[in-house]
Amino acid sequence: MIFNVLTLFPDMFKGILENSILKRAIEKKLITINLINIRDYTKDKHKNVDDYPYGGGCGMIMMVQPIYDAVKSIKNDKSIPVYYMGPKGNVYNQEIAIKMSKLREIILLCGHYEGIDERAYSIIDKEISIGDFVMTGGEIAAMAIIDSVSRLIPGVLPQDESFIEESFYKGLLEYPQYTRPREFMGMEVPEILLSGNHAEIAKWRRQKSIDITFHKRPDLLKKENLTDDDIEYINEKGYSFHKD
Amino acid sequence: MIFNVLTLFPDMFKGILENSILKRAIEKKLITINLINIRDYTKDKHKNVDDYPYGGGCGMIMMVQPIYDAVKSIKNDKSIPVYYMGPKGNVYNQEIAIKMSKLREIILLCGHYEGIDERAYSIIDKEISIGDFVMTGGEIAAMAIIDSVSRLIPGVLPQDESFIEESFYKGLLEYPQYTRPREFMGMEVPEILLSGNHAEIAKWRRQKSIDITFHKRPDLLKKENLTDDDIEYINEKGYSFHKD
Repeated sequence: MIFNVLTLFPDMFKGILENSILKRAIEKKLITINLINIRDYTKDKHKNVDDYPYGGGCGMIMMVQPIYDAVKSIKNDKSIPVYYMGPKGNVYNQEIAIKMSKLREIILLCGHYEGIDERAYSIIDKEISIGDFVMTGGEIAAMAIIDSVSRLIPGVLPQDESFIEESFYKGLLEYPQYTRPREFMGMEVPEILLSGNHAEIAKWRRQKSIDITFHKRPDLLKKENLTDDDIEYINEKGYSFHKD
Repeated sequence: MIFNVLTLFPDMFKGILENSILKRAIEKKLITINLINIRDYTKDKHKNVDDYPYGGGCGMIMMVQPIYDAVKSIKNDKSIPVYYMGPKGNVYNQEIAIKMSKLREIILLCGHYEGIDERAYSIIDKEISIGDFVMTGGEIAAMAIIDSVSRLIPGVLPQDESFIEESFYKGLLEYPQYTRPREFMGMEVPEILLSGNHAEIAKWRRQKSIDITFHKRPDLLKKENLTDDDIEYINEKGYSFHKD
């Protein structure tokens, strides 16, 4: 999969590309990340990419022309979806990550300053926000997307299956995990996990997932396909819960 | 403000610390970012920081001891809140960013692999998630927090006021912005923005904010303190809307 990242700060991505799973995925040629500096496409003699907003107001606005030309130079006649990392977008989630991971190539456009000229939306297919908070630019959001999408591409994670168990993929929050040592500062690993009884361990873990999800994110529990065993456990615990 | 980042991959942060507003904020000594490698605190002779989960399952779990000792070494006897970047946390938003920006010092703990040993929660004050999607580690989430919190600290942004106008800060999505040229590929800047009539421009912008928010994030409109003029406009447009 090819990620084309349009940014004014390509160096910001160095750290994440030279570490961890992304580095390996790039080396194994499972993903390609092209960092394109929008500034290279300005026609302004001072290489400016931003200017004051019409109508007044604080901050600078990214000009439409360099963005437009940068996107066009990558697309040529190809149909490559353009995602703009912006605050007005759909809120990014695992469902969107899974859909993106099935694409062959995408363009991630990172804004900066107070935003982009409205007319740049003419070449944007979808605006995506990673959450209800204000960031200085779209770069960190693009990193979040590159990381979360890449790990869904077969071969990127050490074991193909390892993402299946995780939070949000299966819809509930993950059960507590423990590793060595058995005892730390008086805190012990639950007996059941040492029992070797896989059926009982699976049951315990599912119940712990329900507990945590009920207390922390009841909204997720409502979306989950619950089994009869789950419902029985929920009733047993006296959790007040109504399926949407 | 001091950000202590506990991570297995301190190099991942290089790119964001050497660019843009964070670089300037560090140089101006408005923020300090301490990158602490959790691996330096392992007592394992092979410097291992992770191990297989008790009870079986995919992936590796981060051991409690290096995390515990790394946090303790920073805190000493000081009371510094410890935030763990994890999927089970409260979903991060601008409100949390504003609260954090008033603290003098925080610890951001980045997990990796399949998660951390449950017993590490004994030294965690709050778990924070940046969204309902799975990432490989907490590093990118920590970057999002460092960026969004830093920009709220007085002096970090070029103009102190420039964050006030932005999306989510005022509760509605931002109105369209335009900068030079007046016309691009047949697309023109709206006349009103060239009029110099500040009252009319302010009114147009507020109405555009309402339009965009109604269509894209009606949930935000419900939370907003709407003025009589806003309500009149909403009725005029025939937007179906019920205050929560």
